[in-house]
Order: sequence, then structure tokens, then C-alpha cells
Amino acid sequence: MSESPETYQPTERTKLGRRSARGVYDRRAVHAVLDEALICHVAVTTDHGPLVLPTIHTRIGETLYFHGAVASRLLRTMKLGVDVCVTATLVDGLVLARSAFHHSMNYRSVVVFGRATEVTDRDEKIAVLHSLVEHVVPGRSGAVRSPNDSELAQTSVLALPIVEASAKVRQGPPIDDDADHAIDVWAGVLPLSVQPGAPEPDPLMTVERPVPACVTDYRRPGCGR
Amino acid sequence: MSESPETYQPTERTKLGRRSARGVYDRRAVHAVLDEALICHVAVTTDHGPLVLPTIHTRIGETLYFHGAVASRLLRTMKLGVDVCVTATLVDGLVLARSAFHHSMNYRSVVVFGRATEVTDRDEKIAVLHSLVEHVVPGRSGAVRSPNDSELAQTSVLALPIVEASAKVRQGPPIDDDADHAIDVWAGVLPLSVQPGAPEPDPLMTVERPVPACVTDYRRPGCGR
Repeated sequence: MSESPETYQPTERTKLGRRSARGVYDRRAVHAVLDEALICHVAVTTDHGPLVLPTIHTRIGETLYFHGAVASRLLRTMKLGVDVCVTATLVDGLVLARSAFHHSMNYRSVVVFGRATEVTDRDEKIAVLHSLVEHVVPGRSGAVRSPNDSELAQTSVLALPIVEASAKVRQGPPIDDDADHAIDVWAGVLPLSVQPGAPEPDPLMTVERPVPACVTDYRRPGCGR
Repeated sequence: MSESPETYQPTERTKLGRRSARGVYDRRAVHAVLDEALICHVAVTTDHGPLVLPTIHTRIGETLYFHGAVASRLLRTMKLGVDVCVTATLVDGLVLARSAFHHSMNYRSVVVFGRATEVTDRDEKIAVLHSLVEHVVPGRSGAVRSPNDSELAQTSVLALPIVEASAKVRQGPPIDDDADHAIDVWAGVLPLSVQPGAPEPDPLMTVERPVPACVTDYRRPGCGR
């Protein structure tokens, strides 16, 4: 498969050995998972073996950004330019088959391999921190105080080019053995999704302020994006 | 801190360098996160660098179990007895502060370090596969066909002792700088949770069968546990 504007070039690491039909190199599919996932898990190899931690990310074009305290173990390791593996996973449903064996999950996941570099340019850093807030709560970043010099100095921002990436998707009903269809048990999918609850105002907010649309209409189409 | 029945012994890897107040070695806190999380992310180091993939897990006592196809790259690597790092993360809410800097997430995460061993005993393997279904859908495993010899032969089961483990928790309202309290913006927490949707019956289920309680009352207290 040759590289095209629409797909990522498969590599040794992103070629799926098994169930390759589930592996997709489509840029839009990869972007969609990265954009919907609130967090990802970042793995590095340290002197003490592998380390994987959850973190917030944001995508701008073909770059994935991370941030954290300058002292963060994960960020300090990434800054060395070591290989990293980033995985974002969305659980879409539980697949209830007639046999234990064919139980599964519907999910969309993305894996990105590469090496991160530190963002030191002040304007780019601020743009990324803005984007990180927007990623999590679209429409929020314009309403809050931007980072000041002290906060920028305390924060590391890292950039990972999205070059070596693939998505894996499972969707649809269970796939049971023919003989098992006679088993007298309900089979199907229980969809799952992340849902917002009732907003909880900060007890320190002494002035009554309206709950903004980016919260009441959290991530609904058209809200803040 | 000495080891006690109630806590895990901190190690070089599980000592949190930063915000150590968020780090807990309490067994019940660690178990609760592992039990509530539907999936975890498992990291290993391969010849091509770190690899982290999502997978289903289940906990029986002080052991964490994983399963997968015999051919799975992740399972094959784990089986070599290499160091692994397992992280389970629950996102509980978005923390909306008055400054971009103090935005955060409420979450509970657990990290377990160690080396896995393969489970080869037939009865233990079946018990783990049973437990994996129960972990995801409590009350389901008794209603479905158990794994047969062919399915058992296609499945690897791995055990990781929960010895080197810690939890990290962030909860509560935003913590803003005093000077920012005057900013005219709503601040607070937007809780998030994983919620089931309407069950989708398998189109191949030609006989009408009632949706079982483990689906209609998914993970509600008393259902199947």
C-alpha cells in the first residue's frame, strides 16, 4: 500500500498481525478517535521497564500534543526523544454472544508510534494549551484566563507527529457459531457511552453565574466547535 | 511505610514523585478501580520500542488476569516474562477552573507493575474466562456456553500478581488562584460516567427472548454480583 493523502503508511509496528480487517490507516478515522477520546495512554520505556500513564492530549492537524508539569516523570522521559507509543480507546458497547468465547466489545482505538519533541516557542505553547482546553470542553478556552509566564514556565508541552498510526475498530452484533444459535439466551449489543451528569458549581463561586452552553450542551454538535 | 494487610508496599516505580497526596497504596482503593474499569491498557517493551494496547482484564483476589488469542502480539510478548505495566483509568469529571492552567480532570487510575505468567491449568483457565465475562457483564457467564477444548486451545490466559501497585485519585472542585475568583466565569465540575444505552438484539436471534436483568439493570447494585 503506498502513502496517499487519505491514509497513513503502514509500518512494521502498525501492521496488525491478527484480524487485519480491523486495522485502518484512514486519516479521518484516526483523527476521529483521537478527537473524541478525552484521554489517551502514553507508554515509554524507562530504566525500570515500561511505564504507561493516562494523560490529556489534543490534535492540531497531523500533530498530537501533550502537556504536564515540568517535573513529571512521563514528560521528562518523553523529552529525551525516546520511542513512545500512544493509545486512545473508545468503548462503544458490550457484545453479548451465546458462548463465553465470542463475547467481545465494540470499540475504536488508535495507536501512534513516534518520538516527541518539546515545544518551546511561547506562542505555540499558548496555542497548544488553548487547544487542550478546547479538546476537553469545546467553547471553554475563550472564557478563562490564559496561562501567564509563571504557569508557562511550570508546564512542558510536547509534540508528536502523527505519521506512524493506525486505528482498530470492532462494531456490530455478536458473531456466534452456527450451532450456538439454538441456545436459549438473549444475544446482542449493549451500547455504552460517556455521558455528562448535572454540573456541580464550585462552592467558592459566591456570585451566581449561569452555567455556560459548553457545559449544558457538552460536546453537542455546534457547541463551541 | 511498612507493608500491612491493607496497603501495598511502595516501590521505586510506584512512589509518585509529584502530588504524592494523590497516590494511594490502599488495597481496597486499588481493587475498586480495577473492578470498575471495563478495560485497562497494558504496556510492554518490544524490539521496536514500547507498545501499549487496550485489553479486558479481571481481578481474582490479588491476581490480575488477561486473555487473548494465542497469536496476539501483546500476549506473546507478556508470556516471555518481561516487565509489564498495566494502567486502568476512570474519568469521573471535568474540572472547569477560572484559568486555563487550573483546568483538570477528576479521575481514578491504578498502575500495576510486574511480570505475568501463563495459566495452563484447564480448570483455572475456565475459571478466569468465566470471571472475564462476569467482570464486564455481572450475571452473564452462567447463561452462556462455556469454552470448549478448541476455544481453550486458541486462548492464552495470563496472570499478573498485584504486588507493586498504586492508585492516583483527583476529586473535588477546581482549585483556583485567589486572584482569579473575581473572573466572571462559571467554575465547577461536570461529572462524567459510562452509561448504557438501549440494548440492541442480535438480528440473527429469530426467537424472541427477554432481555436479561444483567443487561436491563447493567451493573446496578445486586445485579449479578
